[in-house]
Formats: sequence, structure tokens, C-alpha cells
Amino acid sequence: MNAMHITSSVFINDDEGGLHADFEYWLESLAPHEPLSRYTHNLTGEDNGDSHLKRQIMGREAVIAITKGGLDFGPWEQVFYGEFDGCRRKRVLVKIIGE
Amino acid sequence: MNAMHITSSVFINDDEGGLHADFEYWLESLAPHEPLSRYTHNLTGEDNGDSHLKRQIMGREAVIAITKGGLDFGPWEQVFYGEFDGCRRKRVLVKIIGE
Amino acid sequence: MNAMHITSSVFINDDEGGLHADFEYWLESLAPHEPLSRYTHNLTGEDNGDSHLKRQIMGREAVIAITKGGLDFGPWEQVFYGEFDGCRRKRVLVKIIGE
Repeated sequence: MNAMHITSSVFINDDEGGLHADFEYWLESLAPHEPLSRYTHNLTGEDNGDSHLKRQIMGREAVIAITKGGLDFGPWEQVFYGEFDGCRRKRVLVKIIGE
Repeated sequence: MNAMHITSSVFINDDEGGLHADFEYWLESLAPHEPLSRYTHNLTGEDNGDSHLKRQIMGREAVIAITKGGLDFGPWEQVFYGEFDGCRRKRVLVKIIGE
Repeated sequence: MNAMHITSSVFINDDEGGLHADFEYWLESLAPHEPLSRYTHNLTGEDNGDSHLKRQIMGREAVIAITKGGLDFGPWEQVFYGEFDGCRRKRVLVKIIGE
């Protein structure tokens, strides 16, 4: 299961709103959005240099085992889509392999 | 192969004790455990806000190719389980697909 | 698809030179190469302690879905090999599963 876009993520973590706020704050501290001049990428006219970096921390994809039609998840595992840019419509790809 | 818990990791790197100490020190610098008030997540009564962040850096899973029953590893690749919380018993899931 | 070495990465992001410069600068800020004494791992006589950390940020592998012989990529997804050490010849493993 993967984000099809390079400024977003699919990741597995806890379904807890405080944690999600912590992620946002933490990612902003590791790769601040501003000043825009911080990123060479923004010379292309885009302003999402930070989004590409944030997505590397959070990851592109998750590979999830399935047994008898159910996800082999631990007690608190949940899949999330992380959006770090927000400028256009995006898609997530779910590919199922096996019998 | 994946951690079934959201404050731990399965990752592949070098089997060298100094490096593992470097990982601990580095992760603590990127996502300090204290002060506990640093993380909104800890308002739930937990104290492992940092563990969820550390696990994102180190990753949840590794997908390892197998040929004729052997892992297709490079010369120094080793699988590790990283524990960033330590409060309960945990499990790792190993799922093998293919013929 | 994965790097077979523990100081390099396979990752998916944008094919834009400015972004790649941003990655280098950013990784160097998160895990500086110097001073070498910063990393216990370098006591082994190596000088690539930082490379092992950089590779954790960028990841070891990418799992790419294939449909009818084509990669199921979004509009800007490209696969890259990231080298953070540079001391020896390296290989990338591509394993294809399915019918």
C-alpha cells in the first residue's frame, strides 16, 4: 500500500489525535516550511521543498501481511495517509498479492 | 517482516555495537524522551510520545527477498528489532510469500 | 527493490536536481559527517558512522506494484539509489514476485 505522490506518505502508527499533532510539530521542526529560500527545490517555482523531506521521514509505503482475509495487525496498528503539501488531488495504491 | 507494535521497529543495518549506541544517542537527539510535556500524546497518560517518533525514523518493516531458501542479503546486512518503549511484551511478524 | 549495503538507500521521490541537493544538505544537518569522533561506530576504524544514520532516514527499500508489466507509479514517482559512503562497489537487488 503506497502513496502515489512524492509529498505524501502511507504509514502505520497509533490512531491518537495528540500523536498526530506531535508528528506535525516534529516534522516541521526537522524540515521547516519556511523560509522558502531554505530549499533549492523551491527555485523551480514550487513551495513544497519541505514536503519532500517530511515524506522521507514518514515513508512512502507499508507492506501488510494478510491471513485468511484479515490484516495481520498488532493491537494498535492503524494505517494512515500523511499529506504534507495539499495542492492537488492524490491517490493511494492498494495492491494485493497471493492466492 | 514487521514489528506488530507502534513504538518499535524492524530494520536492517550493521551488527556493530558502537553503531547501535550511535542510533540510540541520535534518536534521542531527534526526539527526546523528556520533558514529557513536549508531546501532546503524553496527555493521554502515556509517556512514550518520543517512541512513536523514533520508530518512524527507524521504520516498521523490512521486505527481504529469498532465493532457494536463503535471504538475498548483501555482505553486512542484518535484521534488527528496535525497542523504543519497553513497557510490554511484543511480537514480530514474519510472513513468507511465494512458492 | 533494495540496496544490499547498509550505507546506501533505494528511495522514491522527485527527479529534480535541486531537491537532491536539498536532501544532501538536510541529511548532513541531521547526521553530520564530522567530527568523526561524534560516532562510536568510527572507533572501529571506519569513518562512515553518519552514513548508517542517513540511510535510515532515506530507507533501504521500495516495494513497487506492477500491473501488466508496468510499474504502478504516480505522475512524478522515480526510483533513486542514494549513496552516503562511497568507499566500495555496491549493488541493488531487484526481486520480482507474482505470476
